[in-house]
Amino acid sequence: MTERRKFLKTAALAGAGALAASAFPKPALAQDKMRWRVVTSWPRGLPGLFTGVERLCANITAMSQGRMEFEVYGAGEIVPALECFQAVSDGTAEMGHDAAYYHIGKTKAAAFFTAVPFGMTANELNAWVYYGGGQELWDEAYAPFGLKGFLAGNTGAQMGGWFRKEINSPEDFRSLKMRIPGQGGQVMERLGATTVLLSGRDIFQPLQSNAIDAAEWVGPWNDMALNLHLVAKYYYYPGFQEPGPALQLTVNKGKWDALPADLQAIIATAASAENDRMIAEYNARSPAALRELVEQHGVQVKPYPQEVLIALGTASGELMREILDSADDITRRVANSFLAARRDAMLWTRISDQAFTNARRLSFPYPGGDTP
Amino acid sequence: MTERRKFLKTAALAGAGALAASAFPKPALAQDKMRWRVVTSWPRGLPGLFTGVERLCANITAMSQGRMEFEVYGAGEIVPALECFQAVSDGTAEMGHDAAYYHIGKTKAAAFFTAVPFGMTANELNAWVYYGGGQELWDEAYAPFGLKGFLAGNTGAQMGGWFRKEINSPEDFRSLKMRIPGQGGQVMERLGATTVLLSGRDIFQPLQSNAIDAAEWVGPWNDMALNLHLVAKYYYYPGFQEPGPALQLTVNKGKWDALPADLQAIIATAASAENDRMIAEYNARSPAALRELVEQHGVQVKPYPQEVLIALGTASGELMREILDSADDITRRVANSFLAARRDAMLWTRISDQAFTNARRLSFPYPGGDTP
Repeated sequence: MTERRKFLKTAALAGAGALAASAFPKPALAQDKMRWRVVTSWPRGLPGLFTGVERLCANITAMSQGRMEFEVYGAGEIVPALECFQAVSDGTAEMGHDAAYYHIGKTKAAAFFTAVPFGMTANELNAWVYYGGGQELWDEAYAPFGLKGFLAGNTGAQMGGWFRKEINSPEDFRSLKMRIPGQGGQVMERLGATTVLLSGRDIFQPLQSNAIDAAEWVGPWNDMALNLHLVAKYYYYPGFQEPGPALQLTVNKGKWDALPADLQAIIATAASAENDRMIAEYNARSPAALRELVEQHGVQVKPYPQEVLIALGTASGELMREILDSADDITRRVANSFLAARRDAMLWTRISDQAFTNARRLSFPYPGGDTP
Repeated sequence: MTERRKFLKTAALAGAGALAASAFPKPALAQDKMRWRVVTSWPRGLPGLFTGVERLCANITAMSQGRMEFEVYGAGEIVPALECFQAVSDGTAEMGHDAAYYHIGKTKAAAFFTAVPFGMTANELNAWVYYGGGQELWDEAYAPFGLKGFLAGNTGAQMGGWFRKEINSPEDFRSLKMRIPGQGGQVMERLGATTVLLSGRDIFQPLQSNAIDAAEWVGPWNDMALNLHLVAKYYYYPGFQEPGPALQLTVNKGKWDALPADLQAIIATAASAENDRMIAEYNARSPAALRELVEQHGVQVKPYPQEVLIALGTASGELMREILDSADDITRRVANSFLAARRDAMLWTRISDQAFTNARRLSFPYPGGDTP
């Protein structure tokens, strides 16, 4: 937290300094000074997501000596939450921050640049986008819309969701009514659930009134703010539907191409740095939130039973097969590249992070201990 | 790869452009133009580590419009591989890139900013350093040496090492002679092994001539370049000793304090972006290297048996207890902060990344398949 304050303070001070300097008549650097609008899908002030965009933008301002300044908008302030793609595409805003998979209506390929059920973790997705051909395909998929996309944050693995009743077998999804969007929702529907789409702030009331039986949003840190633990006591994991959802920075391609090389480098690097920071903040804040949910609110954190996971995995595989079978050219190439990267990632993750974290939970004494 | 080439090309072009511009008499930006020396612990050209530092520096040059340029030195070129800390401290070089734990001779606290046996993964360490109080303690620990440290890359989880004979029980470490440095080596010694310290390029010959029985270096991508697979066939995992070793960028504190705020922001952001990129490159390159080792060189990739992992974990816990018992003030505070973050991280990782990756390996059909 202190580090982040310092980070922001440095950025703010540098920005303020540059702003003050710009009050003098025609300084050399003011010639190309610009002020960009940034639309986001996030409620103003939402910790992690909205604050991450503010950090990203403050950082660009600091690095550019104030040549680039930004007005960051919350969901619905100048365009609806899910219209960022269109707004940046048509120049209503110069930049946007949201999740690519909101825009499968524009191109189905977009889903793969956020997360798909039983897909890849954040680290695995980064490897694919940066060094496995993902970015080139992404550029190709977005070119028709006049957009340039960058990885710019990740929430890390999400939770499976909040349920009012225990889930003991795949049959328990039958006739369940759940708030869960996108492909995760389509998987649930294959198991007999009915799904509904509600914005985060609209989840609490229908869950309280029994209009819905379950809801998935993000993870402990963000979910706690919605008070879902007050109306549903079972909190299931893992979030098979979003194992490491990436957030994207989009830049209007015309505006991007007109930037000098140094400002392009500054924006690309700020996006990459935010990709480094945001998931670290989620990982740092989640344990305390989880502990508070369990210890102060009596939430029961439960793993999906193995039989349920296999049913969810099978339905996820079937959905992916259908997407492949009906895909247009770019979506098929994106999907095949993603799936090849996923296969490779599973090979390496199994003997690296996964083997280590499993070994670390074997029983042996270690100072500081752990929480079984 | 193409993305990286583009990244470097953009950086190089921007740098070249700025350089050309600086040939004109007194351009406004040339007033504070500087050229810094960067010492590293890495053999010149080593993929991942040395090339990562080059990328980081090229990126700073691009973002600063060429106001900062760098000469990056390989291990031993102007100072020995393990003398980067001292060289940046005394101003021989303005910046350095190496691993903090090489310098426990300066402060024992340094080990925690790289990796300790059965410690934290790369993601968990990032959470601690950025948002768990780690950076503030790091700044305090390095202040007496006139250094500022930044996270600037990570290899991700390493492998356990190359063995000429199978490891079936903890007794098999007795009378084993192994190349394994630092705390990992101290753990091995507790199980009866003899350890030796050799630079990467000096490992092949003694392993071939039976002067040593085993050796740990990095992981498939870097290890394959050393040809260790030609003289040892068993490749064990997980690398309990280095579950996510961070690399550090060090900056001479006097030079840092003299920088304008925009260049400070540029360096800090470039370090964070490299922290995002380097591990992605290791994760992207490791699967193909691992596959080549197995399919073309007959390497046997094997998990340490559970009994062995428990013995290694127990010895690691004992070592950590001894470090705590004999620690000076700053080392004790760093260790306690690290251990508290580790305990929290284990709680959250267990139900996020770990639960997801374990679920993903259950048996169900998925397009693209996987490699068991």
